[in-house]
Amino acid sequence: MTTTTEPLSPTARTTVGRGRQRLVTERTALHALLDDALIAHLAVVVPGAGHPLALPVAFGVDLEGPDDGGTLYVHGSVAARWLRGAEDATVCVTVTELDGLVAARSAFHHSMNYRSAVIIGTARIVDELAERTRALDLIVDHMIPGRSATLRPSTRKEIAATAVLAVPLREASMKARAGGAGDEPEDVAAGGWAGHIPLRRVAGVAVPDADAHGPTPAAVARRAHRLTAAAAAR
Amino acid sequence: MTTTTEPLSPTARTTVGRGRQRLVTERTALHALLDDALIAHLAVVVPGAGHPLALPVAFGVDLEGPDDGGTLYVHGSVAARWLRGAEDATVCVTVTELDGLVAARSAFHHSMNYRSAVIIGTARIVDELAERTRALDLIVDHMIPGRSATLRPSTRKEIAATAVLAVPLREASMKARAGGAGDEPEDVAAGGWAGHIPLRRVAGVAVPDADAHGPTPAAVARRAHRLTAAAAAR
Repeated sequence: MTTTTEPLSPTARTTVGRGRQRLVTERTALHALLDDALIAHLAVVVPGAGHPLALPVAFGVDLEGPDDGGTLYVHGSVAARWLRGAEDATVCVTVTELDGLVAARSAFHHSMNYRSAVIIGTARIVDELAERTRALDLIVDHMIPGRSATLRPSTRKEIAATAVLAVPLREASMKARAGGAGDEPEDVAAGGWAGHIPLRRVAGVAVPDADAHGPTPAAVARRAHRLTAAAAAR
Repeated sequence: MTTTTEPLSPTARTTVGRGRQRLVTERTALHALLDDALIAHLAVVVPGAGHPLALPVAFGVDLEGPDDGGTLYVHGSVAARWLRGAEDATVCVTVTELDGLVAARSAFHHSMNYRSAVIIGTARIVDELAERTRALDLIVDHMIPGRSATLRPSTRKEIAATAVLAVPLREASMKARAGGAGDEPEDVAAGGWAGHIPLRRVAGVAVPDADAHGPTPAAVARRAHRLTAAAAAR
């Protein structure tokens, strides 16, 4: 089932119409973006109402997961309306990392540097207890790698209260932009300044809760350090 | 038409069902978030296909704009399929700023600190030339305040090639989370560490293009400086 080398944009609905010069086709670039990103936006069509709804979600990734192209997991409360509406429906998961602001010589050519992936697929509610438990650990470890192994196991009650949505990674497209302005030749010839402001996300030192005991766990300290280091190296 | 003091979540479809303890009702908090955020995700239902599509977009805001509650402007190519599908349709604009990762004592209580607003409304294609020109300037100035006044005017051809979508700000909801973990009492009693990793976006010094002439414009240098200063002060 899993296909990890197929190029991106494998279907009509994941074919990029505009801005093809920003198209990314390597599936490894999608995997790297998913690794960098901390949140995604999950868009569903609200049942009954028929309008779109996009919500920010934490996510986890299992490239060897049971869905076509690997699995992206999203979790939410079992009582959340949007999650119920997503079951067996086509959903869209969009992951965007903003890398810079592009100041061109004209308003028209102002732009942003970014990496963004759009994943479209049929959402599957994860019923099986073992897969749901594993998905929750993947979501925690996506946030803070190595964290789940240091925690007590989730209780049956906690797992019962959590709905997990699985989205196949196969139908994905990706675009990216980097660098400076793409100005008109006559604007460049007229002189003047153009360029970009690089943006990155940095982490502060972990802040312990008032009731915390002991030193900052190694996985947490490492995550804070690496988030900042990875952004600086990009 | 414009209502800027009405509380958020004014309608059934912008009423938050879950996590009401994170609900934000002050409209000024929405305005502050829109001011901080650099991108939004615009979700539409793809005409014909019927599935949702969420795309990252730059945006501008006119609190005194012609739409109910003020106007959020999004622009794109006139040839973009998603923009054509948004005309007179209900769209969702979601704006999320990620502020931290929350490391609880259980997987279940891992969370994120964030501010996120969901705006639902009927999208209006901006036909009038003057409003479209103004919207483009607002989008540029949202990215880099003061920038549009330093640029040559947009040409008719550029304005003709740009589609602008206006979304009323009235029907918005907002949630926010800050601080440490919300652990179970028995997990707290058992001791152990919990806390959060603060995240912020910082800007590097503006990078001039190879063909740039002159010093970095004041508006660009100020934007880079203030993005970093504002994040540090939060």
